[in-house]
Amino acid sequence: MRVHEALAELELVDHHCHGVVPHDLDRPAFESLLTEGGVTPFDTPTGIAVRRHCAPVLDLAPHAHPDEYLARRAELGAREVNRRFLHAARTGTFCVDTGHTPLPLTTPAELADAARATAYEVVRLESVAERLKAGGVEPDAYAEEFTRAVHEAVRAPGVVGVKSVAAYRTGFGLDPARPAPEEVTRAARTWLAHAGRLDDAVLVRHLLWTAVDVGMPLQLHTGFGDRDIRLHRADPSLLTDWLDAVPDRVPVLLLHCWPYQRQAAYLASVFGQVYLDVGLTLHHVGPARAGAVLAEALEITPFGKLLYSSDAYGVAEFYTLGALAFRRGLGDLLQGRVDAGELSPPDAVRLARWAGAENARRIYRLSDRF
Amino acid sequence: MRVHEALAELELVDHHCHGVVPHDLDRPAFESLLTEGGVTPFDTPTGIAVRRHCAPVLDLAPHAHPDEYLARRAELGAREVNRRFLHAARTGTFCVDTGHTPLPLTTPAELADAARATAYEVVRLESVAERLKAGGVEPDAYAEEFTRAVHEAVRAPGVVGVKSVAAYRTGFGLDPARPAPEEVTRAARTWLAHAGRLDDAVLVRHLLWTAVDVGMPLQLHTGFGDRDIRLHRADPSLLTDWLDAVPDRVPVLLLHCWPYQRQAAYLASVFGQVYLDVGLTLHHVGPARAGAVLAEALEITPFGKLLYSSDAYGVAEFYTLGALAFRRGLGDLLQGRVDAGELSPPDAVRLARWAGAENARRIYRLSDRF
Amino acid sequence: MRVHEALAELELVDHHCHGVVPHDLDRPAFESLLTEGGVTPFDTPTGIAVRRHCAPVLDLAPHAHPDEYLARRAELGAREVNRRFLHAARTGTFCVDTGHTPLPLTTPAELADAARATAYEVVRLESVAERLKAGGVEPDAYAEEFTRAVHEAVRAPGVVGVKSVAAYRTGFGLDPARPAPEEVTRAARTWLAHAGRLDDAVLVRHLLWTAVDVGMPLQLHTGFGDRDIRLHRADPSLLTDWLDAVPDRVPVLLLHCWPYQRQAAYLASVFGQVYLDVGLTLHHVGPARAGAVLAEALEITPFGKLLYSSDAYGVAEFYTLGALAFRRGLGDLLQGRVDAGELSPPDAVRLARWAGAENARRIYRLSDRF
Repeated sequence: MRVHEALAELELVDHHCHGVVPHDLDRPAFESLLTEGGVTPFDTPTGIAVRRHCAPVLDLAPHAHPDEYLARRAELGAREVNRRFLHAARTGTFCVDTGHTPLPLTTPAELADAARATAYEVVRLESVAERLKAGGVEPDAYAEEFTRAVHEAVRAPGVVGVKSVAAYRTGFGLDPARPAPEEVTRAARTWLAHAGRLDDAVLVRHLLWTAVDVGMPLQLHTGFGDRDIRLHRADPSLLTDWLDAVPDRVPVLLLHCWPYQRQAAYLASVFGQVYLDVGLTLHHVGPARAGAVLAEALEITPFGKLLYSSDAYGVAEFYTLGALAFRRGLGDLLQGRVDAGELSPPDAVRLARWAGAENARRIYRLSDRF
Repeated sequence: MRVHEALAELELVDHHCHGVVPHDLDRPAFESLLTEGGVTPFDTPTGIAVRRHCAPVLDLAPHAHPDEYLARRAELGAREVNRRFLHAARTGTFCVDTGHTPLPLTTPAELADAARATAYEVVRLESVAERLKAGGVEPDAYAEEFTRAVHEAVRAPGVVGVKSVAAYRTGFGLDPARPAPEEVTRAARTWLAHAGRLDDAVLVRHLLWTAVDVGMPLQLHTGFGDRDIRLHRADPSLLTDWLDAVPDRVPVLLLHCWPYQRQAAYLASVFGQVYLDVGLTLHHVGPARAGAVLAEALEITPFGKLLYSSDAYGVAEFYTLGALAFRRGLGDLLQGRVDAGELSPPDAVRLARWAGAENARRIYRLSDRF
Repeated sequence: MRVHEALAELELVDHHCHGVVPHDLDRPAFESLLTEGGVTPFDTPTGIAVRRHCAPVLDLAPHAHPDEYLARRAELGAREVNRRFLHAARTGTFCVDTGHTPLPLTTPAELADAARATAYEVVRLESVAERLKAGGVEPDAYAEEFTRAVHEAVRAPGVVGVKSVAAYRTGFGLDPARPAPEEVTRAARTWLAHAGRLDDAVLVRHLLWTAVDVGMPLQLHTGFGDRDIRLHRADPSLLTDWLDAVPDRVPVLLLHCWPYQRQAAYLASVFGQVYLDVGLTLHHVGPARAGAVLAEALEITPFGKLLYSSDAYGVAEFYTLGALAFRRGLGDLLQGRVDAGELSPPDAVRLARWAGAENARRIYRLSDRF
């Protein structure tokens, strides 16, 4: 079997994504979800890819005009639009980060239902800390209460991993050591006394080490994102000392990575417990460049270390685009190597299946859950 | 119309360049202008591209020997050589940085005349400060006098923007805040008391904030350059906190960017007022790699955010090479996407025209000036 | 002559490599040498390239199963396996770093004998310092004794250069200045009083400046490596201030560089005495990506500045793979430019020979030695 066929047949595991907005979106709302910034959204690589690949899913011609696209989207309604894009992604399993909800999004169960797929949950640890703060906690009880709250959160049915957005909050230039209890109390005293999200370096370190203690797969946002990111502080190689201290049994999944996919690949190649994806990147660069980014990400990465994710958020188009860009990019890369005699056809199919589904199944122990 | 034809017909706007040396150059002078360093200049990608693409403009066969090339150049004389290369660039508009003149260069008017084109001026702010120092100014009057001098400079006819080479002087690891008046005076006291160019971090910050107050398009050298650059401090992502504080109405144009074109693209994608080009890079990497660099620069950049510049300096060959590399690189990229069905032909032509001329016309308000 | 033929005929100079293990390796030992990390070694780009390109050297079909590969390797025995792979590399000259020997490796003479080639030696300076420590030296005699030991080591027959692994020990964020004698004595006092390898910043700076005084070609590990590397501190652009202070007569060779090959290229383009290779990278990324990495490394690098090295260590497969990836990658790149009309055929052949052998002969003065 050729690689593209194998990938077309494969039900992907999308190991990191978010819900979609369940209600209809007006043009400003749609456009603001289409890009991380919100400038000229249809004349971005993403916008061009939406017009090319998503328009036909809505029964329009490829390259439909944005006005036509938005009109048809409104005509069909959110429920039907979401259903179509989720189906077009041919994704069997979603691991949904439920912790980022400036907009009301579908729950994992609603997403699974719309996609006729299975959905698991990933607990965003900063949200756990911030809920604790909102609920009221004494500084000297913070460490214990946070640990308790995390353990409770991950015991909920369907939780398969945890996630941190430390990249956004402090960046990765952190002291790699576990903070002492008195440091945590002191930091909590300051943080709890003022409004604001979790951005204290000691508490972020405590959060990361709590994740290690929990021992579930830990997803880390790395690389680009919205304008809150300071890109040079989100280079995952800054985390090397910390990764060196994390025990082998705790999988650490570097998400997105762009433009540091080679740095992430280095980490995945030397640390047994480190994995990576190029989620988010895929729908931002679109099918035209997904192969080039994957080729860099895979230059030295062991094939057991690459996962698929869409990082789709808000608009269901990104499920379709992420899956398409991944299937085509990885398919072109592997088939190209087969055609050049660099890779055997059965190996190519095997490695495609690993990246598209099996690596995630193994790391998140998804098969144990059926 | 196919993209390459559209780009061939389009009169480019070169939004950042310098003058050319108006007199004849001997071999050492020519070679030292050919590269940022000056080692084996004809056996660099630039030198190979000059022999390939510039030799025919001088009626020589492609790949002419350097000796033959230099002899023919001398035979034709600077005036004719400059005329030919400027015409071959098919550039209708130049925005000329007039502030870097270790060699006597053509003025914008002379450049426009030789090219039968229009030339505007970009004011290099470090040169304004250094002229102030040379003319004598009291430390406690520095801030006011610098502001006055900048406002005066930009009121001159034909000035369309300002430029900073902070990347060379301090790098971008700057405190993003506007310095307090007493800080500026203190820093001016030290700087004015000693010989030397503007390289004080407080005064560079003051310069950048003065540019913001002026409100004209602000060009920033980023990425590589000559051996005075410390490349890791010229990564534009180091400027993120500062960019976050710049109001949306002030366009900031990241010049060159290589090898940080992806970092620049991230900034252009999340900040409404940030733009980029890969000038300088184009003639350094030559047509053989211009497409690859542009492809990275455009991975996530909105198409309304890419501009063309040659950053040509001293030798007129770079006008020809920059324009050729841009037209071919962007043409191949867009036509390739058309051929793959990823982009519609009219969109491709439209986006080519945006990048080659219309984005610059809009940002610098060039149409208002005719 | 076409470029690939020229490169096939050319006896390469491998300007940086190590010995091979002369005895048979069991599976864990072989696998641990196959990657920098040791995870799923056969399902990495290197492992796939070994199965593809090395299996036929052992009379197996391409893409042989790992079990079959290891069985055949054991059957032939280390001596025959090493002989075959060394011959297949068609390398005429090796410069062997003899200072990294956690495993017993062949000496340069043994390597030369197995390859029917010439081998020179490169002295690893950290090992000189560490032997001094092991032998006992007083802190206030350290500077003088180290200098004496280095001069003695480089006077040994066949020594053509020195090497530092400062990238591993302190990274490149070093004070570029030569340390004062009393600083060195103070640092030596601390370092000599405790067990451990040379990782003191003052002593590493002293080591680098001693290398400059010796004046032989100085190899510097840059970029990726095993898990001891902190990648962001191994970016060679961090060394710019130091390189700026090194006199032009001392060649500095940036090894490996990935993923900072563009940063290294910038340095090679502006500093007369700086050179680079993408050794180690070649067999890690394999022939499938060697061309892409070389294309980035060569974007602005003068062609007189690129060298070939395998950085092969331990297993002889890497000699074959490195040479194959280099010949194919560079051949494809140059022939592609010839086919596109960007480069003349004689220039292409000349530049291929420079990079494959002649640059190294000139820099290390190898021709003087016959």
